[in-house]
Amino acid sequence: MRIDGKEKQSLWYEDNVLYLIDQRKLPEEFRLFTASTVEQVCFAITAMVVRGAPAIGAAAVYGMAIGKKNINTTAELLKKTRPTAYDLFYAVDHIITCIKKGENIEDAAHHYVQEIIQRCKQIGDHGELLLENNMKILTHCNAGALATVDYGTALAPLRIAHRKGKKIFVFVDETRPRLQGLLTSWELSQEGIPHTVIADNAAGYYMKNGEIDVVITGADRIAKNGDFANKIGTYEKAVIAKENNIPFYVAAPISTFDTSIKTGKDIIVEQRSDDEVRCYKHMQIMTKHTPVKNPAFDITPSKYVTGFITEEGIRKK
Amino acid sequence: MRIDGKEKQSLWYEDNVLYLIDQRKLPEEFRLFTASTVEQVCFAITAMVVRGAPAIGAAAVYGMAIGKKNINTTAELLKKTRPTAYDLFYAVDHIITCIKKGENIEDAAHHYVQEIIQRCKQIGDHGELLLENNMKILTHCNAGALATVDYGTALAPLRIAHRKGKKIFVFVDETRPRLQGLLTSWELSQEGIPHTVIADNAAGYYMKNGEIDVVITGADRIAKNGDFANKIGTYEKAVIAKENNIPFYVAAPISTFDTSIKTGKDIIVEQRSDDEVRCYKHMQIMTKHTPVKNPAFDITPSKYVTGFITEEGIRKK
Repeated sequence: MRIDGKEKQSLWYEDNVLYLIDQRKLPEEFRLFTASTVEQVCFAITAMVVRGAPAIGAAAVYGMAIGKKNINTTAELLKKTRPTAYDLFYAVDHIITCIKKGENIEDAAHHYVQEIIQRCKQIGDHGELLLENNMKILTHCNAGALATVDYGTALAPLRIAHRKGKKIFVFVDETRPRLQGLLTSWELSQEGIPHTVIADNAAGYYMKNGEIDVVITGADRIAKNGDFANKIGTYEKAVIAKENNIPFYVAAPISTFDTSIKTGKDIIVEQRSDDEVRCYKHMQIMTKHTPVKNPAFDITPSKYVTGFITEEGIRKK
Repeated sequence: MRIDGKEKQSLWYEDNVLYLIDQRKLPEEFRLFTASTVEQVCFAITAMVVRGAPAIGAAAVYGMAIGKKNINTTAELLKKTRPTAYDLFYAVDHIITCIKKGENIEDAAHHYVQEIIQRCKQIGDHGELLLENNMKILTHCNAGALATVDYGTALAPLRIAHRKGKKIFVFVDETRPRLQGLLTSWELSQEGIPHTVIADNAAGYYMKNGEIDVVITGADRIAKNGDFANKIGTYEKAVIAKENNIPFYVAAPISTFDTSIKTGKDIIVEQRSDDEVRCYKHMQIMTKHTPVKNPAFDITPSKYVTGFITEEGIRKK
């Protein structure tokens, strides 16, 4: 990802220190968070300095490197940070397996992170072929480099198309309640990609008016039949896209496909804190007495998906 | 409308003074704004102390009563406050016609406002018949008593159903960018109607999960063929409702039907200030540099509408 004109990652490891772009401060403020102890890495994950499943996995493998002298305690501490994060558990266990094989822990961690980056790059290469000059793309939430160390998933094709000189324009849903669209806007600004943020309510307006050529989102989990879970609101955008004959693509690494889940009906939707709806960061936009509900993601049935953009190519349904 | 257990209106006129619920302060704070001069009435309209086309019309007729000694200047001043508000012009011209007929100006104003209230009450009576016990209703924006002096349009059937003892539950879209859903939530709280506010993104989730039985919204303008303009996001909700076989009703007085407009394509959508997206009230939720677009309403084609709830009954498409 480009930041202030330079190539960066959302996190990196140097001389036994993990550096992370502090996502709590973005997009208002760019600040680095440095972690040189396991406790600091745990804090970074718990307090959401780092967000996005692949990026959390990356932070965890470097956390294992930092805490290599007490590897079992380190693994335990890390796993406690976000108890429902699949990538976190996978990453920690992966490093333990590498150690058992006699691999150098820093090398194993670097290798793990390079694989994430490589997969996103490949998603970008495949997805970029879908984008023609002057296309307008709608995206939802932040499936960008911040969430995946580099490139992103949904944003990878846009980055690569732009770097190849294709003219594109991106409509970014603000993505209430947490407004992750602002992170996407920040990434696109840094990359110099023309775009606009819109209220989630306005996506249908632009789709109906023929101003959007393709929709690309990420996915949190994809069931065997192609139903997928993603940030709340994705389902609405997918239905409206189909209604207006706009192709709808899901960009995600193969690891997101969970073949143990037959259909979307078997995915449990997390209900998150009411205050995410009532507040934005520290600003209270609704009174404490306002009754609210806050489902964090929704399930989009496979029939609305044109194709899945993966590191191995585009899977049609 | 019930406020603190008492029957109130969003505005009323007593001893040459116009009292208005200050909608700039709601829902955080309940405060009355008093206007005893034409200038104060003009300020109330311009500064959006009063919002909603019928309520603005009502404020204007009382403004005419307050400024009756210089009626032509009063009419001119009032018409300048919100140059695109159809009800405002209609209301001012109506009072001038009444004066020419020799009617008492206060009586004409009261009569005009009573008619608005009566029409909303009738919309409520007809719409209430659609609501069965234990029904769950989704509404978008604020088509309530605040916008229409009393009862509201979309909220009138809910009020009356609740007062008749029917158990209902209302899902209220927060309605970004201006969060008018919070005004709806405030009205429902005052009325004792169980409800929850949701991010606009979550409406599809609840519709797909079978948790919503009917959608009722208001309308700003209805074309001859039944296409209608309403707050941005209405189109998305209508498409999702149809996709899930949920009836979608539009509650609006006959005066909202504009037979001079053939289809929705002839309705021009107002693009409003970028800062409405970047801010909520005085709180900046996006930086000033964030590129945004802000279409204020969208057009929903007639094919998504189950019926129009009017003061004369329910019009099927």
